[in-house]
Amino acid sequence: MTVQPHIAVIGAGAWGIALACTLSHIARITLWTRTPVPAGIRALPHLPQVTLPEAVTVTSDLPTEADIVVLVVPTQGLRDVTMALQKHLKPDVPVITCCKGMERGTFLLPLQIVEQTMPGRPAAVLSGPNFAIEVARGMPAAATLAAHDLAFVTALTERLTTPTLRLYASTDPLGVQIAGAAKNVIAIGAGISVGAGMGENARAAIITRALAETARLVDAMGGQGRTMYGLAGMGDLILTATGAGSRNYSLGVAMGKGENIQDILAQRDTVAEGVLTAPTLQELGQRFGIETPIINVITRLLSGELTPHQARDELLDRPTRFE
Amino acid sequence: MTVQPHIAVIGAGAWGIALACTLSHIARITLWTRTPVPAGIRALPHLPQVTLPEAVTVTSDLPTEADIVVLVVPTQGLRDVTMALQKHLKPDVPVITCCKGMERGTFLLPLQIVEQTMPGRPAAVLSGPNFAIEVARGMPAAATLAAHDLAFVTALTERLTTPTLRLYASTDPLGVQIAGAAKNVIAIGAGISVGAGMGENARAAIITRALAETARLVDAMGGQGRTMYGLAGMGDLILTATGAGSRNYSLGVAMGKGENIQDILAQRDTVAEGVLTAPTLQELGQRFGIETPIINVITRLLSGELTPHQARDELLDRPTRFE
Repeated sequence: MTVQPHIAVIGAGAWGIALACTLSHIARITLWTRTPVPAGIRALPHLPQVTLPEAVTVTSDLPTEADIVVLVVPTQGLRDVTMALQKHLKPDVPVITCCKGMERGTFLLPLQIVEQTMPGRPAAVLSGPNFAIEVARGMPAAATLAAHDLAFVTALTERLTTPTLRLYASTDPLGVQIAGAAKNVIAIGAGISVGAGMGENARAAIITRALAETARLVDAMGGQGRTMYGLAGMGDLILTATGAGSRNYSLGVAMGKGENIQDILAQRDTVAEGVLTAPTLQELGQRFGIETPIINVITRLLSGELTPHQARDELLDRPTRFE
Repeated sequence: MTVQPHIAVIGAGAWGIALACTLSHIARITLWTRTPVPAGIRALPHLPQVTLPEAVTVTSDLPTEADIVVLVVPTQGLRDVTMALQKHLKPDVPVITCCKGMERGTFLLPLQIVEQTMPGRPAAVLSGPNFAIEVARGMPAAATLAAHDLAFVTALTERLTTPTLRLYASTDPLGVQIAGAAKNVIAIGAGISVGAGMGENARAAIITRALAETARLVDAMGGQGRTMYGLAGMGDLILTATGAGSRNYSLGVAMGKGENIQDILAQRDTVAEGVLTAPTLQELGQRFGIETPIINVITRLLSGELTPHQARDELLDRPTRFE
């Protein structure tokens, strides 16, 4: 009989709950929530319709031991949580980051934060087209698990694939993380085109061409451009930029309809990450000498420098080029 | 003053009308329709809400001269039309095929048919995410124009880009045409997963992984795998596999809901091309030694060999692999 591993899932937002549910089929789970909850609680506020499986124990004490730690806190909270965990966890316990975007101020990607706060620890990043509620309910899904070390990520992929969440291994954590940041920006652009009534063709063209320019950027940065066409890039973007559920896409739609971005942001209590990421991606393009015309136009739309129709004309007027 | 070129658009279905409209901004257009129409007609049955621009002349006599010929007949009628055109057209007049799919019986792609019926003539293929009505109305769109010869396709791309239809050059006509055939098959698979209630995550995963396996197939066949991630592949698939407008996608949705494929096809007077293309792609995968698990499962779903839930289990149970 195999002893089930013990996985600590840190963060009980919707995605943390969902991962705890699906991983409970292959492991004993400790699910950490920042806010203390009553003992024996079987449903949590961020996914109240889901009953937690037997194998999941909820706690608000940060775990001091586990076989694997899955980090599902927001990127902006990752530094604090990993610093606290580092004090007690054995140095060979692997961690997996599941957040997207960049740390404000430092512009660091999640794994770069972990490299600072947990130096030398084996680490991977998980990303893909995953609505939490579907994964929590055991509906089929796939995601990419990426780390530099081939043997490590291959073993971890086999270990963490559950009966309904199929993982694919990648050795391009940089590409996976840039994909997770860029898809929010591209979703804003797709939303603007739809909001401005430019149609389905324009949206499909923006998504396709923006992925192409981001892939060139990832290549230039030392990652693998084709990662942008995988589950963490295109896959996640299909989910984000074709449905109304995304904060970034809906922000774009409102902008396309002519609403002022400051007014839209003032009405929301959540942040559309793409607003913060767009200028950083534009800057990366400049630094690495890669043309990113769509990212640049979205950045200027966000700063109020362009209207949607000026953006359209600018993109259509560019010299023709190779695909 | 530049003399405007004369472009003959052969075929007055919705896409032929749309191309005639957008190309009329850069050329004088003759639009050929099989069925004779009254002289001076300004709207045609397949896109009745669109008034034809002044620069478009409708005729039912096959043109005997033009600077460029754009072929917008169905793939199944391409052989007859090109054989008829070949008798009168000067040998250096380039033709552009705009149809998707394979010829029944021969399994030839559109350009392969043209190579047989118009040997030695310069030829290119046009494909992208283009709803006809949007292009006809002058809404922004992009597409790929592909031919083997670099200088030819570069010049043609510049020549045919209109103020609202932006073309990208490619030297991979094989990849573009396989993309146009495969996207119908993948759209059926995406539809089945949605019809069977498997959710948005599953659809995004199917689209992403099916594109990856088709890209490997295109590489093995001597094309450029990355063409699958361009406008003719992923771009067109975003349009086809996320909206209800597609025959192939809606066929998949009905199958996913448990309807019998023979019953669905019997109720329709149009053909879902993917039904015919799926077994051919599966066979190509076998011939070129490329694993195409999603194409294979869709083929077996179409032949009634698998149910959607068996298909899901089979795909989830495969050994983990690299992205």
